[in-house]
Amino acid sequence: MNPPQVLAFDIFGTVVDWHGSLAREVAALYPAVDGNAFALAWRAGYQPAMQRVRSGELGWTRIDELHRLILDALLPRFGLDHLNEQARAHLNRAWHRLDPWPDTVAGLTRLKAKFTICTLSNGNIGLLTNMAKRAGLPWDCILSAEVFRAYKPDPRTYLGVAQTFDLAPGQVMLVAAHQDDLAAARACGLQTAYIERPFEFGLAQPKDVSPDAANTWHARDLVQMAERLGC
Amino acid sequence: MNPPQVLAFDIFGTVVDWHGSLAREVAALYPAVDGNAFALAWRAGYQPAMQRVRSGELGWTRIDELHRLILDALLPRFGLDHLNEQARAHLNRAWHRLDPWPDTVAGLTRLKAKFTICTLSNGNIGLLTNMAKRAGLPWDCILSAEVFRAYKPDPRTYLGVAQTFDLAPGQVMLVAAHQDDLAAARACGLQTAYIERPFEFGLAQPKDVSPDAANTWHARDLVQMAERLGC
Repeated sequence: MNPPQVLAFDIFGTVVDWHGSLAREVAALYPAVDGNAFALAWRAGYQPAMQRVRSGELGWTRIDELHRLILDALLPRFGLDHLNEQARAHLNRAWHRLDPWPDTVAGLTRLKAKFTICTLSNGNIGLLTNMAKRAGLPWDCILSAEVFRAYKPDPRTYLGVAQTFDLAPGQVMLVAAHQDDLAAARACGLQTAYIERPFEFGLAQPKDVSPDAANTWHARDLVQMAERLGC
Repeated sequence: MNPPQVLAFDIFGTVVDWHGSLAREVAALYPAVDGNAFALAWRAGYQPAMQRVRSGELGWTRIDELHRLILDALLPRFGLDHLNEQARAHLNRAWHRLDPWPDTVAGLTRLKAKFTICTLSNGNIGLLTNMAKRAGLPWDCILSAEVFRAYKPDPRTYLGVAQTFDLAPGQVMLVAAHQDDLAAARACGLQTAYIERPFEFGLAQPKDVSPDAANTWHARDLVQMAERLGC
């Protein structure tokens, strides 16, 4: 297989540590709250919320708004229903302040020297831009479900990357820590790279990171991926 | 007026020298052709081509495709109708290879330290990404008419930047070398900065770069703009 020209990266869990970042921020803001449980509960609302958009129950709605719907429903369970609008808006933007994994910036910087690197996230453009600026993520381009008005795993997202750069699907590689995302990309003809993120859900809940031979590449982290791709 | 949070940059003429870059490339590829005249003729087709999209005569069509329509119509006039598909496709991508003005990279780098900097161009995302990678333009985010499916001066483009970042229009500033672009942005409530590019159309045809008091800022180039904005 020829090397890809564009690497498109999943973000939440693959490039940034949503669980650790949210748990730390919640615990710092509200010491009485179990940050680990809060982060998991917030994220657990993510796929069901996007499903409301995919099914047509909701019109096009950005992740910032979906995160806020989930948050508002979640606060009473954690004794935080007294939070005012300003506090809720600030907490909701915690998704703009997620920290990268330790290898992320070094890995992306090396990969960028050889490939065009872009995001392909269900996160909205503003969220991804704010995150990149704060964390120093050196994207060539920020692509998002928001550009294609469809959430992954809709084929319009994966094929949209190829169309954006006037490439065949096989000239694009999706990089992600989630086998279902990669499988959907592969079904569209993209190359795929799996990145192990065993502690995506926290140290207490290690994730199965077994290789799937269907992927073009498998790497421990983004620095090892850069090495394997000769960067 | 409060300082803006996001600076959105027009690209062709403001950030990159389309005339000089095209003229040089055409003259190098086809020494018998007048590069200056070719560049001007190609660019002269730009607004009429976008007008065909704005009017609905053409469905949504990216600038790469519009540039190619103009190019194909232009080649016979310059004795180049013998060019094959590969040569035409290569020449059309000259718009991805435009050189920045001498102050561009230094100015953007300084401005980026204090503001979120993004493109707001009628050029398509792939074109803008390839251009940025080649020229070292340090965008935080690439926004384009392609994201909003409307060409400037459609209000959806200017207001789209504000919506992307969840800002009021007045928290965004358009930076451009074209007073009509700036006037349209101002009508949407954006701040505006005019950048003098007296030789946008070549040394032989200096452009009127008089200040318009309606703009928030007026600067000779992007380095001077960074100085004025305290970067």
